[in-house]
Amino acid sequence: MPGDVLLLSNSRPPGGAVPFAHAREVLAGHLGDRTVWFVPYALADHDAYFAWVAEALGVDLRPLHREPDPAATAATAEAVFVGGGNTFRLLHDVRRLGILDALRSNDASRYTGSSAGTNLAQPAIHTTNDMPIVDPGGLDALARVPFHVNPHYLDPDPASTHQGETREERIHEFHEMNPGPVVGLREGAWLHRTGDTLALGGNTARLFRRGEEPVELAAGTDLSWLISS
Amino acid sequence: MPGDVLLLSNSRPPGGAVPFAHAREVLAGHLGDRTVWFVPYALADHDAYFAWVAEALGVDLRPLHREPDPAATAATAEAVFVGGGNTFRLLHDVRRLGILDALRSNDASRYTGSSAGTNLAQPAIHTTNDMPIVDPGGLDALARVPFHVNPHYLDPDPASTHQGETREERIHEFHEMNPGPVVGLREGAWLHRTGDTLALGGNTARLFRRGEEPVELAAGTDLSWLISS
Repeated sequence: MPGDVLLLSNSRPPGGAVPFAHAREVLAGHLGDRTVWFVPYALADHDAYFAWVAEALGVDLRPLHREPDPAATAATAEAVFVGGGNTFRLLHDVRRLGILDALRSNDASRYTGSSAGTNLAQPAIHTTNDMPIVDPGGLDALARVPFHVNPHYLDPDPASTHQGETREERIHEFHEMNPGPVVGLREGAWLHRTGDTLALGGNTARLFRRGEEPVELAAGTDLSWLISS
Repeated sequence: MPGDVLLLSNSRPPGGAVPFAHAREVLAGHLGDRTVWFVPYALADHDAYFAWVAEALGVDLRPLHREPDPAATAATAEAVFVGGGNTFRLLHDVRRLGILDALRSNDASRYTGSSAGTNLAQPAIHTTNDMPIVDPGGLDALARVPFHVNPHYLDPDPASTHQGETREERIHEFHEMNPGPVVGLREGAWLHRTGDTLALGGNTARLFRRGEEPVELAAGTDLSWLISS
């Protein structure tokens, strides 16, 4: 059976300087006393990123980017934690370094993602909010879950004079090109797959299905149907 | 000499139902009485999109998507107008249909872009705000201008609790990976290249250069240095 998956919308709680303070309990239960390899490639400064997260998490976190062969380490890791930043840069680097294939072959590992790390767990990075600052060599990703997630889901601001698309309009565009469901995770929310169960935690979310009206989801909602085949 | 280029941030003025009402004068001068081929692929419904724009513009606008060989028509067009929508879908379709290469070979044509159409005129679509709903087969674009533009440029909202990146942070990420300047075009703004001259019109903009503080630009600013080699 594939390893459990925890997908967080964001790393930093609103107004809070300590990353993951809003998700301490679920992270502790998910990671336990495992050795967790941190994947920092979504940000430019890997060392600083690792230090910032390692101090906050209080688990046995190790820097994958300092390994002599990061792909080999990823292939046998019992747990990985993929941090947020720019999804295109993340996918570009893990593909180039062989880490993408290593993680695909090691799907018994326990996976944790935040923001861009959450996008990387999807079938493809179609629903990232990030700018395509680098060509990732294809949009296909890890498919640790069979649906898409929009992290940092943002409700429309009725007072805005901005003429770009709202997030909901962008997800509608996704459904003009792709059939699968999209979970819009608001700040503070996460999805936790444990065995055959998938649950929403931390905050509300909004579920988008092609050709249907969006649905509001309360924290605690059982979403196991999203992972049943 | 390459044909003149007009790059608009947006098609619909805030609160206004009539597309391009804010840019009527500059569009009339740029397009004149030329035959203008409309490129609708950034939106899903090409016929509806063409009808909406054709009615508003009041020029000799024709639907490229209804041509028997759109690439052949694009290769000899005296003017094209590339509408906004999703930049990834636009680039995917014009590449697949051969229109991208046709427009590259026909750089004497007069180019008008709005939003996604503005992104298509850049060296690559690195600074689009759009969701990657489809793999465009590479990010390289028309390079009708040698710099990048961020349409719908949005100033940070100090009241927001959103934990995703601000637009300025995203452009900073672009500069972590790419050297060239980026013009953040606020709603209502445009860039107009006529011969060797490039000018900002319609609204203010914000100029981002790698390793430098961003600079505010007033409407009317001469930016010809951006196109001089």
